[in-house]
Amino acid sequence: MLTFDSPVFAAYALAASAMVLLAVATAWITVIQMMRHKAGYRAPEDAKKTPLNPVPAEGQVGAFEPVERYRRIMANHLENIPFFLVVGLLFVLTGPGLVLAQWLFYGYAISRIFHFLAYATGQIHDIRATFWTIGSVIIVAMAVIVLMTALSSI
Amino acid sequence: MLTFDSPVFAAYALAASAMVLLAVATAWITVIQMMRHKAGYRAPEDAKKTPLNPVPAEGQVGAFEPVERYRRIMANHLENIPFFLVVGLLFVLTGPGLVLAQWLFYGYAISRIFHFLAYATGQIHDIRATFWTIGSVIIVAMAVIVLMTALSSI
Amino acid sequence: MLTFDSPVFAAYALAASAMVLLAVATAWITVIQMMRHKAGYRAPEDAKKTPLNPVPAEGQVGAFEPVERYRRIMANHLENIPFFLVVGLLFVLTGPGLVLAQWLFYGYAISRIFHFLAYATGQIHDIRATFWTIGSVIIVAMAVIVLMTALSSI
Repeated sequence: MLTFDSPVFAAYALAASAMVLLAVATAWITVIQMMRHKAGYRAPEDAKKTPLNPVPAEGQVGAFEPVERYRRIMANHLENIPFFLVVGLLFVLTGPGLVLAQWLFYGYAISRIFHFLAYATGQIHDIRATFWTIGSVIIVAMAVIVLMTALSSI
Repeated sequence: MLTFDSPVFAAYALAASAMVLLAVATAWITVIQMMRHKAGYRAPEDAKKTPLNPVPAEGQVGAFEPVERYRRIMANHLENIPFFLVVGLLFVLTGPGLVLAQWLFYGYAISRIFHFLAYATGQIHDIRATFWTIGSVIIVAMAVIVLMTALSSI
Repeated sequence: MLTFDSPVFAAYALAASAMVLLAVATAWITVIQMMRHKAGYRAPEDAKKTPLNPVPAEGQVGAFEPVERYRRIMANHLENIPFFLVVGLLFVLTGPGLVLAQWLFYGYAISRIFHFLAYATGQIHDIRATFWTIGSVIIVAMAVIVLMTALSSI
């Protein structure tokens, strides 16, 4: 079942790798924001003069909203994506129908990408919450199916 | 080995899906706490008047202990559960005995649920630390078995 | 493909279990730092007198740099390691050559261990950033290969 010849697994692998790239992209944007603004660094040693930081800025270390925004996005990713990645794989092993699996995998990925865009552009909470809820419900649905399948196998 | 016909895998899938549901439930409780208390929101835009937030409260955005408690629980989950999920799957692939596997998988799940309950109800640190330690030792045990199996296969 | 008889999978399992142990070790060092310094605890109830904390210290709860350092290291692990663990497993399923797989898996593990050492000892940001970048690029490379394989299978 865990082979790229299986359309269900291929759909999972597509959504999963896209989600990993989304999370890594968020980390890179955080880095870019820190470098652009010379602010939002976290460790005391980041205020030191170094080859990559020849002229340290006053207040370079500390909370800075354009960086904090991406840290909040990352925190939100971390509460979601790792669970999708694992429960999605276990869901593949329950042998779901292809159409259902595609709706859940692609629906999750799309909802997460829209959540990212809504958060990054500072949309109102209602919009962000809607996309978050879609993704969260999909994780719950897959987890419940895995749980029921496991219970009926024991 | 990764099939629900395998009792070891079914035990893993049961514990894993329960842990995903515990993490998602923690996120939902955080949301419910924010909505109930109209406090503890994080992003500046969450203070705006919107259809779901028609009368924004003073101080709606910012740290608020009844919400922060669930954020700390989530932070603790994130340092634990994703590692359990992956190392548990790899442990299944080492072909462990069923009784050992059940003790480790169910022991982890039960210790995590009790950790959650102890944290949510504000029990003293000693109790929380005890449940945390049980879960952490189980992860270490499984990781060491996977590591040894990998080393002896190379 | 997901069997310890496969050298690619064994290399993955070795790197993956080492990374789980690194993350758990970081959590344990955080605990040890809190106990040694009697500081850096997080929950209000951690200031209470208990059998394990018979003489609570003034200011025991709150940010304390020698503890915060390991929390930052853990936060960095969490933005990296879970994604490596899952995308590494999916990468195994793409059937990569052994030498490439070993370079990526061991390269990631070594870069992460060096990142940990650089962060724990307060090295300048440039050094930490270099090791972080190596690990991040490896995750991206594997995710792109998984994505391309999935796309060409659909």
